[in-house]
Amino acid sequence: MPETFPPTERTRVVREPHRGSFDRETIYKILDEGFVCHVGFSMDGQPYVIPTMFARVGDAIYFHGSAASRMLRGVSSGLAVCVTVTLIDGLVLARSVFNHSMNYRSVVALGNASLVDAAEEKLAALRAFTEKILPGRWNDARQPSEKELKATSILRLPLSEVSAKMRTGPVEDDADDYALSVWAGVLPLRLAAGEPVRDARCEPALAVPGSVSGFDRRLSGK
Amino acid sequence: MPETFPPTERTRVVREPHRGSFDRETIYKILDEGFVCHVGFSMDGQPYVIPTMFARVGDAIYFHGSAASRMLRGVSSGLAVCVTVTLIDGLVLARSVFNHSMNYRSVVALGNASLVDAAEEKLAALRAFTEKILPGRWNDARQPSEKELKATSILRLPLSEVSAKMRTGPVEDDADDYALSVWAGVLPLRLAAGEPVRDARCEPALAVPGSVSGFDRRLSGK
Repeated sequence: MPETFPPTERTRVVREPHRGSFDRETIYKILDEGFVCHVGFSMDGQPYVIPTMFARVGDAIYFHGSAASRMLRGVSSGLAVCVTVTLIDGLVLARSVFNHSMNYRSVVALGNASLVDAAEEKLAALRAFTEKILPGRWNDARQPSEKELKATSILRLPLSEVSAKMRTGPVEDDADDYALSVWAGVLPLRLAAGEPVRDARCEPALAVPGSVSGFDRRLSGK
Repeated sequence: MPETFPPTERTRVVREPHRGSFDRETIYKILDEGFVCHVGFSMDGQPYVIPTMFARVGDAIYFHGSAASRMLRGVSSGLAVCVTVTLIDGLVLARSVFNHSMNYRSVVALGNASLVDAAEEKLAALRAFTEKILPGRWNDARQPSEKELKATSILRLPLSEVSAKMRTGPVEDDADDYALSVWAGVLPLRLAAGEPVRDARCEPALAVPGSVSGFDRRLSGK
């Protein structure tokens, strides 16, 4: 498998190209770290951007929805989509307002999404959603019945036209501005987990799974 | 000012309508809490979804970019856009895979974005960006020069066709599943700030501003 995705005219990073990447591992890592993707599609000349859960399996993104939703009525009939995943890493507090920025990592994937029909592929996608949220959860929770599987609509977008864009590192100020008496630096941001809230109807004797109590360590990469 | 935005056929919440809202304060609060919006637009039949910084001023969303970017070449010529802001609040860990979900709050705004021309409005939008990131920062940092102001492209989307959608609260399992021996509950998630990283060229004598050191308390609403 080639180490990079081929750039196309549509995925070429136009603005600040040094922040762009087509590296496969970089793209996988961003997709696998995100919990929510934003799916864009167009209907009657109006774009829509809808947040939804997703998972990557090999070189495909699977995303979730319902046959009743506006999104799926659109894409199941073959509309082009854009799936974007963005991770916020920090606020870049420069000495000048103009050079304020954000550290982030994002992936933009273009293509045509199709409904997953095969029960086996649907099950594999649901398993990927569940395991992505919480490793081990697929085996711990009750797995989908045939009826539930039928009631679940899942779409697949093959990863072919895809690029990453990111900003990392410190403040970049204009040369003259470094002399200013303005505190400057980066404020790191990350998605953090709080204390698990046991369901009111969950017996206290059932221990909190290690994957739940250790979730924040996993998020922070510790 | 009416307390709700009028629903339209395009902003009506089709799936799980009980999770939808047109309440003005609810919509404002979600927009004001988010740091990044996802802007959707369509070019040559292909939707694009691009993350960018933004701020709300009254009943308009201002978002950031550069005249060189693909996004702005599109929308400045009058393309329809969708601006979506999503906040992740928690993972809903049900007893069944099927009832796993996410607590979230999102806003979807539809309309036509236009380039901001007037220097005064541009300045007000930049001020809103800066103050949103860090209250007080506008006065602390060097403000934009005329040249910088000219080099900055800002777009305005009036808030008129807009709706919120959210999921809050505990697990909702099927009646039969409550008897299962599966730990169930909600794992709260939030964007959290770490320790500020002082810029290498920032004199140690310059104290970390209170707005930076107290940032995480503000994020967590404490």
